[in-house]
Amino acid sequence: MFKECIENVRKNVPLVHNITNYVTVNDVANVLLACGGSPIMSDDIDDVEDITSICGGLNINIGTLNKNTIPSMFAAGKKANELGHVTLLDPVGAGASKLRTETANKLIDEVKFDVIRGNISEIKTLMLGSGSTKGVDADVADKVTEDNIDETIAKLKAFSKATGSIIAVTGAIDLVCDSDKCYVIRNGRPEMSAITGTGCQLSGMMTAFVVANKNNKLEAAAAAVCAMGLAGEIGYERMAEGDGNSTYRNRIIDAIYNMDGEVLEKGAKYEIR
Amino acid sequence: MFKECIENVRKNVPLVHNITNYVTVNDVANVLLACGGSPIMSDDIDDVEDITSICGGLNINIGTLNKNTIPSMFAAGKKANELGHVTLLDPVGAGASKLRTETANKLIDEVKFDVIRGNISEIKTLMLGSGSTKGVDADVADKVTEDNIDETIAKLKAFSKATGSIIAVTGAIDLVCDSDKCYVIRNGRPEMSAITGTGCQLSGMMTAFVVANKNNKLEAAAAAVCAMGLAGEIGYERMAEGDGNSTYRNRIIDAIYNMDGEVLEKGAKYEIR
Amino acid sequence: MFKECIENVRKNVPLVHNITNYVTVNDVANVLLACGGSPIMSDDIDDVEDITSICGGLNINIGTLNKNTIPSMFAAGKKANELGHVTLLDPVGAGASKLRTETANKLIDEVKFDVIRGNISEIKTLMLGSGSTKGVDADVADKVTEDNIDETIAKLKAFSKATGSIIAVTGAIDLVCDSDKCYVIRNGRPEMSAITGTGCQLSGMMTAFVVANKNNKLEAAAAAVCAMGLAGEIGYERMAEGDGNSTYRNRIIDAIYNMDGEVLEKGAKYEIR
Repeated sequence: MFKECIENVRKNVPLVHNITNYVTVNDVANVLLACGGSPIMSDDIDDVEDITSICGGLNINIGTLNKNTIPSMFAAGKKANELGHVTLLDPVGAGASKLRTETANKLIDEVKFDVIRGNISEIKTLMLGSGSTKGVDADVADKVTEDNIDETIAKLKAFSKATGSIIAVTGAIDLVCDSDKCYVIRNGRPEMSAITGTGCQLSGMMTAFVVANKNNKLEAAAAAVCAMGLAGEIGYERMAEGDGNSTYRNRIIDAIYNMDGEVLEKGAKYEIR
Repeated sequence: MFKECIENVRKNVPLVHNITNYVTVNDVANVLLACGGSPIMSDDIDDVEDITSICGGLNINIGTLNKNTIPSMFAAGKKANELGHVTLLDPVGAGASKLRTETANKLIDEVKFDVIRGNISEIKTLMLGSGSTKGVDADVADKVTEDNIDETIAKLKAFSKATGSIIAVTGAIDLVCDSDKCYVIRNGRPEMSAITGTGCQLSGMMTAFVVANKNNKLEAAAAAVCAMGLAGEIGYERMAEGDGNSTYRNRIIDAIYNMDGEVLEKGAKYEIR
Repeated sequence: MFKECIENVRKNVPLVHNITNYVTVNDVANVLLACGGSPIMSDDIDDVEDITSICGGLNINIGTLNKNTIPSMFAAGKKANELGHVTLLDPVGAGASKLRTETANKLIDEVKFDVIRGNISEIKTLMLGSGSTKGVDADVADKVTEDNIDETIAKLKAFSKATGSIIAVTGAIDLVCDSDKCYVIRNGRPEMSAITGTGCQLSGMMTAFVVANKNNKLEAAAAAVCAMGLAGEIGYERMAEGDGNSTYRNRIIDAIYNMDGEVLEKGAKYEIR
């Protein structure tokens, strides 16, 4: 089934509107192209509604939110809802500042998101009003482990039910849930956390996957997570002596570019709970 | 003659002021350095006139235009005109939104551009008030083919005459025209479209080429197009099993870095119509 | 001693808040991760005080300053001072425009910086109210040479005394001074100047080094300069036929990622004056 998910992306070439941070935006654009999608970036209030209208999906990432782009996020989100487009929220740094937490919460209140994707600290912040986000990385205290996984999944399912959004939590173990089904994914490598923006890249790519598989959104979101993790594994195998995180970044995007349905289907490591 | 064009860039180290989008800006800076130029980015209304004054050329790219940077584009453009500096417009996404189309048209009305460089859908939008821009990529319906090339060239020459600008349309076949002469260029590889920002990179590099060859602007613009396409060919030859669009991006910029006049002269594939 | 400096970065994982330009921001984030730090970017006035509060250091880079981010620089700088956090200023393009020169001078007046790091033209502008900054690169006329080095060091020490900041000037010869001691550093390669943002990367990394070595700030700043230059040397050795500035960028960040204390200690080339 994951095979069809990625094949649909390559077949349909979904246009994705990204309102995203300027740190990782180039990698987000390249990974969207690598997976078969087509990226557009636009964040001015006078531009976003037109741009989102010609796209199939909207990826909102609050990584470098500011007073000009925040209203654009709401305007684009509402327009995308109106048009029935796919919407995804990446609440980067929710919990790390009042502005980020409040903006993410308000976006969830006013825009219907198909997917909310973040690290466990960001998602805990949104679920519980607490969580100990340490900057843009998840805090160790929040980490998903074999010990707390069942409890975490139950909470994520409840949050999915409350919001109507698929909840995707990425980390050493990835969890992609709707209100009654959770993909527990074990692809990826710890070295991926030494690259800036693998989460942002995943959010962009996941939007394309969901747009191209609108009748199968949960599986598409899970397939995107597996694809990213698997790309991290494939990319790592190609690393040579002396290579580091900058080359690894290129290798991962390259692996997405070369990934076909068979490779994804075979390499995906997940169970459903 | 293309040989001298690139050699003049390396000899003169033209300083290029870029008001450009934040998606591809890093690659624009690196390709400008690779070809022998020197990049500066500045987009605040209180900064752009000073910065453009110390440069030889101004590259305006509307890829992530916003209410703060739009007035800066006009101010810098007018200052550059006043000083007789080279000016280039890259109307990214013209046709995709009202703001983009109107801003591009207004820039052309109020600023004299030496070159307007875009894909065929963007240029058609500016020429005809129509064109079917699909996001930031050209629409298939607008594609330059062997069947419509003569008609397209005639229109581009007329648009060049109307604007006083060199018109550079890039795609599978590239066309670089003034009012009576058109370079038809067949360098490049289709895989280049899987990299974000090869067009933006070309606009930056083309500005440097034109600044360093002010008495020979049309040829300089055509030389830049050939250099970019040829770099795409050279870079592609260096791709290994498992490499993808991210590595390809690096290989292309690397190929520009290593390209000398002889290589460009010999590798350029063009005819004049 | 440099050995301990880099080991402390890897051990303490300093969180660094960056208000930096959008040209080189991705490389700054990746080099911070490569050296063992953790980057956060935030530049909205309503966000910066919260973000800087959870960090250990603040890196302010005026490379693409604008009317929204300038007030954020002051607010974050003052907050960081209040909390006793490490602060660094990278006055990109000071001397190239009135806005850049005035903003840098005003920041130095109102914020106490632990380190000011720039090229010689930028630092001369700040020291003397003059200097001939040519865009974002140092002017040849300002270059530190064996002939003017003693005189330059004397001036930098005086500037350090006046500001209370460590002054780091990078170029072919790097100088890292406080009011009575100067590290004269001869690591690096001339080819590094063909990559955009090696200076910005160094500023980010230096902030992490100083945060992780608060009792040893001058040495930490010098160690960061040696690490960057040495990475340029190591990265250059790994360059293959046909590689250019884009690959070199990756190789340098990779070299930081793989650099351990022994390698830095052994490879650092400096004398103290």
